[in-house]
Amino acid sequence: MSELLSLDMIMAARERLRPYVVQTPVVAMVPGGWRLKAENLQPIGAFKIRGAFNALLALDQPARSAGVIGHSSGNHAQAVAYAARALGIAATLVMPDNAAPVKIAATRRWGAEIILVPPAERASATAALAARHGFAVIHPYDAPEILAGTGTIGLELIEQCPDMEIVAVPISGGGLIGGVSAAIKAIRPDVRIIGVEPELAADAQESFRTGTLTGWPVADAARTIADGLRVAKLGDLGWRHLQAFVDDVVTVSEEAIMAAVGRIAREARLVAEPSGAVALAGLMTLGDTVPERSVAILSGGNVDDATFCAALASPIMEEITEP
Amino acid sequence: MSELLSLDMIMAARERLRPYVVQTPVVAMVPGGWRLKAENLQPIGAFKIRGAFNALLALDQPARSAGVIGHSSGNHAQAVAYAARALGIAATLVMPDNAAPVKIAATRRWGAEIILVPPAERASATAALAARHGFAVIHPYDAPEILAGTGTIGLELIEQCPDMEIVAVPISGGGLIGGVSAAIKAIRPDVRIIGVEPELAADAQESFRTGTLTGWPVADAARTIADGLRVAKLGDLGWRHLQAFVDDVVTVSEEAIMAAVGRIAREARLVAEPSGAVALAGLMTLGDTVPERSVAILSGGNVDDATFCAALASPIMEEITEP
Repeated sequence: MSELLSLDMIMAARERLRPYVVQTPVVAMVPGGWRLKAENLQPIGAFKIRGAFNALLALDQPARSAGVIGHSSGNHAQAVAYAARALGIAATLVMPDNAAPVKIAATRRWGAEIILVPPAERASATAALAARHGFAVIHPYDAPEILAGTGTIGLELIEQCPDMEIVAVPISGGGLIGGVSAAIKAIRPDVRIIGVEPELAADAQESFRTGTLTGWPVADAARTIADGLRVAKLGDLGWRHLQAFVDDVVTVSEEAIMAAVGRIAREARLVAEPSGAVALAGLMTLGDTVPERSVAILSGGNVDDATFCAALASPIMEEITEP
Repeated sequence: MSELLSLDMIMAARERLRPYVVQTPVVAMVPGGWRLKAENLQPIGAFKIRGAFNALLALDQPARSAGVIGHSSGNHAQAVAYAARALGIAATLVMPDNAAPVKIAATRRWGAEIILVPPAERASATAALAARHGFAVIHPYDAPEILAGTGTIGLELIEQCPDMEIVAVPISGGGLIGGVSAAIKAIRPDVRIIGVEPELAADAQESFRTGTLTGWPVADAARTIADGLRVAKLGDLGWRHLQAFVDDVVTVSEEAIMAAVGRIAREARLVAEPSGAVALAGLMTLGDTVPERSVAILSGGNVDDATFCAALASPIMEEITEP
């Protein structure tokens, strides 16, 4: 592929994925007015299933027979495990030992082999196992098939929300925002794409502002409650797409993330995990300047009960939601 | 109208409602397999908006100018208030003083006047105010326009789930199950309609089993946590449709209701109120005999935080969801 994803690749992914992924609904927040692209309603509760299926479906038969391996803080692991089982492919998943327990249990449920390692060793452990066993590596974000898969969200939004003005997208390794922004800007260059990151893992904003791809210490990025967004440096593909297609990158506080989880439960009756609520937190943080015809991508809903109930009880949320 | 709702009335309601209500998605539970008709994703978080809009749209201009009144434990009140505001009609809502605070606050939000009364006085207070002020009464369940509105859920399900074998529907006053069953049996008489009620408010099951419309003491029916299902006697219309179209009525424990709220959050990432989870609780109670191609109507998602978090922590739920 060239430097950037082509619209043809995303449209091909859409056809290929049709039997396997849900065209998720767009849910309007009431009385909030903003809209949520409800990727938490995918079968494993997260958008990651789009990239995972697209990557697995791109493998040839020898590669499928050898099996696949992936590493992930959680939702990519579930997605690869689920897609691999659906396609009859053996899967091994390397997960950080600080991943949310609900995500580890859910990955195991699909019959994948789980290897827990310290967060900083994920990539090296994955490479070593892949070399030893001949597994195809399904990267969590930095691969064209992943971006083509996430790009299908952009195609759906263009049809579902023709009047949209802003799309807010969470940023971790860049796989989601890369695909979504490529799809939308190819067809609707007038729509503004806003990336959103936790303040505690703001490597992408720093890269965007300085024009130089910059990583943060892994331990710093691991401080945020948004466990899906702890990737401390954008992938190369994500970085190139961020520079080409993204209009701005904003950051949100931990309190705003929790408040967004609460608002999504109350105003849209959807369960969001903190990482999944970050895009809405971005719109809330931008506040009154954001037009009503804006969409936040609700990227996932796999949350521990304790975290979710803490978000519902958040005092900051009360201040924001009570008129 | 004749004794039973005609398919024509329901199809007319569908056209009339199209600009105002959401065609809600059907969400598959994973790994559960059963499907949920997600009426919690309506703008006010409950199916009641269908009947409310249909009833208000049926009023002539003088009636609209005079204003409307309704009584409800909560979601019908919100629905009438929301629909009235959307159509520029003044609304008064009589609510029981034991209604969930979240539902009272949400009704007030739409600009309606709220009158709180003891639960047993709802109907009489409503009639008195209607007579005094000339308001049109929007009944919460026992009116043809309400059943025609809820019947549109049945029409959608026929299109969305052509392979469905069972549809489970919560029963309160009969407005939901009356419309849904009339629509489905008119087109798909092979689909089984199962009504579900809390054991603590099982007046409809008693009526169904004995063949005689039977009411329970209001105080008895008020014991269930499913605050939307505390109606202690079916409406006449609901009763006639129950006899004509419903295949069985089953009851569920309070524990099963709470467990269903938890499963819906974990396996479908949707927020359900206890009343909204009762249909799934019915499928869970019937257990292994229920085919995977079954649908539970998730009728609403307006739940207090404390109740919702108690459901997530329910020990019974752990037993049911952990393999």
